[in-house]
Amino acid sequence: MASARLEAQVRFLVEADRLKEVLRQTVTTGSRRPENSAEHSWHLCLLALVLSEHANAPGLDVLRVLKMVILHDLVEIDAGDTFAYDTAAEAGRHEREARAADRIFGLLPPDQAGSFRATWEEFEARKTPEARFAAAVDRFQPMLLNVETEGAAWRKHGISEDRVRARNAHIAEGSAALWEHMSDAIGKAVAAGHLAPPPTS
Amino acid sequence: MASARLEAQVRFLVEADRLKEVLRQTVTTGSRRPENSAEHSWHLCLLALVLSEHANAPGLDVLRVLKMVILHDLVEIDAGDTFAYDTAAEAGRHEREARAADRIFGLLPPDQAGSFRATWEEFEARKTPEARFAAAVDRFQPMLLNVETEGAAWRKHGISEDRVRARNAHIAEGSAALWEHMSDAIGKAVAAGHLAPPPTS
Repeated sequence: MASARLEAQVRFLVEADRLKEVLRQTVTTGSRRPENSAEHSWHLCLLALVLSEHANAPGLDVLRVLKMVILHDLVEIDAGDTFAYDTAAEAGRHEREARAADRIFGLLPPDQAGSFRATWEEFEARKTPEARFAAAVDRFQPMLLNVETEGAAWRKHGISEDRVRARNAHIAEGSAALWEHMSDAIGKAVAAGHLAPPPTS
Repeated sequence: MASARLEAQVRFLVEADRLKEVLRQTVTTGSRRPENSAEHSWHLCLLALVLSEHANAPGLDVLRVLKMVILHDLVEIDAGDTFAYDTAAEAGRHEREARAADRIFGLLPPDQAGSFRATWEEFEARKTPEARFAAAVDRFQPMLLNVETEGAAWRKHGISEDRVRARNAHIAEGSAALWEHMSDAIGKAVAAGHLAPPPTS
């Protein structure tokens, strides 16, 4: 006989399955279809494991980073994915996502709901070293896919170099090394014609 | 100027993107399309976070479990996904996957390649408490999706209750509570006609 606690946890895990249907603007390097937020979150886990040595903060708590990247996009089940360069949608994003967090984390037993909500808030606030590093990999990963697909999402949406640099410079708060690497890659993408230079007018 | 070490890590992370194209037999609960191994791996991370309190072993090292479930399917980039009930394919699975592990983890700097390979071997050997729990969630998750899709993959492949129980009973080695829950769910799936009873002849 299953406990009510385990039943609630299982309902949450079934609801979470819907994140696989939330599509992002970034495309995969293979079939070049839109990436979904669940597989994006897995990719961030792998980035966190492989790249944590490049974090600015020494002795990063990798488990804490992983918890953040595993949970960070669950709110998109209700709120949808907000494209990084969509400034209009960005305006109401946090409010939409906070309502989603209430509902989705609220499916869990209260102690876990509180803990998961706190982890998500930590990620959003980007104040702890772990949250800064988690945010850095969350920006590094879509840029990497863009670089590897000749700027597919950048070109589709007419995003130019200046906007890419401005939107992603906070990578340096989590990892100066990762931002240095990506800054070079942005320069190469512009030189190759995969990313438009800043408008001159 | 990026270091050679970071360049190697980035090449590995780009190669890993291909896991998003490896399709499984299980279908998602929403659009009912085949699940891919990358989003499956993310779902396992979430199961590990939510359900670790149900592990048989007290004081489980959750970071170790997460490392295993994040990495466990990367070998499928070369070896493909082996359906749990495909006994013919299962025969050569470990050898195919070991060759894949050599190539894929070998893209990383040697210290990380060795560490990731050891994590994958630990998962495969299923001897430590963490590996047993990781294996338990790796079996629990597709069963959960089957239960929630009226047995879609079971019915498609004509899998009957006896085979489901035999193939997944090792969940109990990682978590008696999870196996008890799933054992009930299997009984309900049979009663609802979503899973065939054992053949009588």
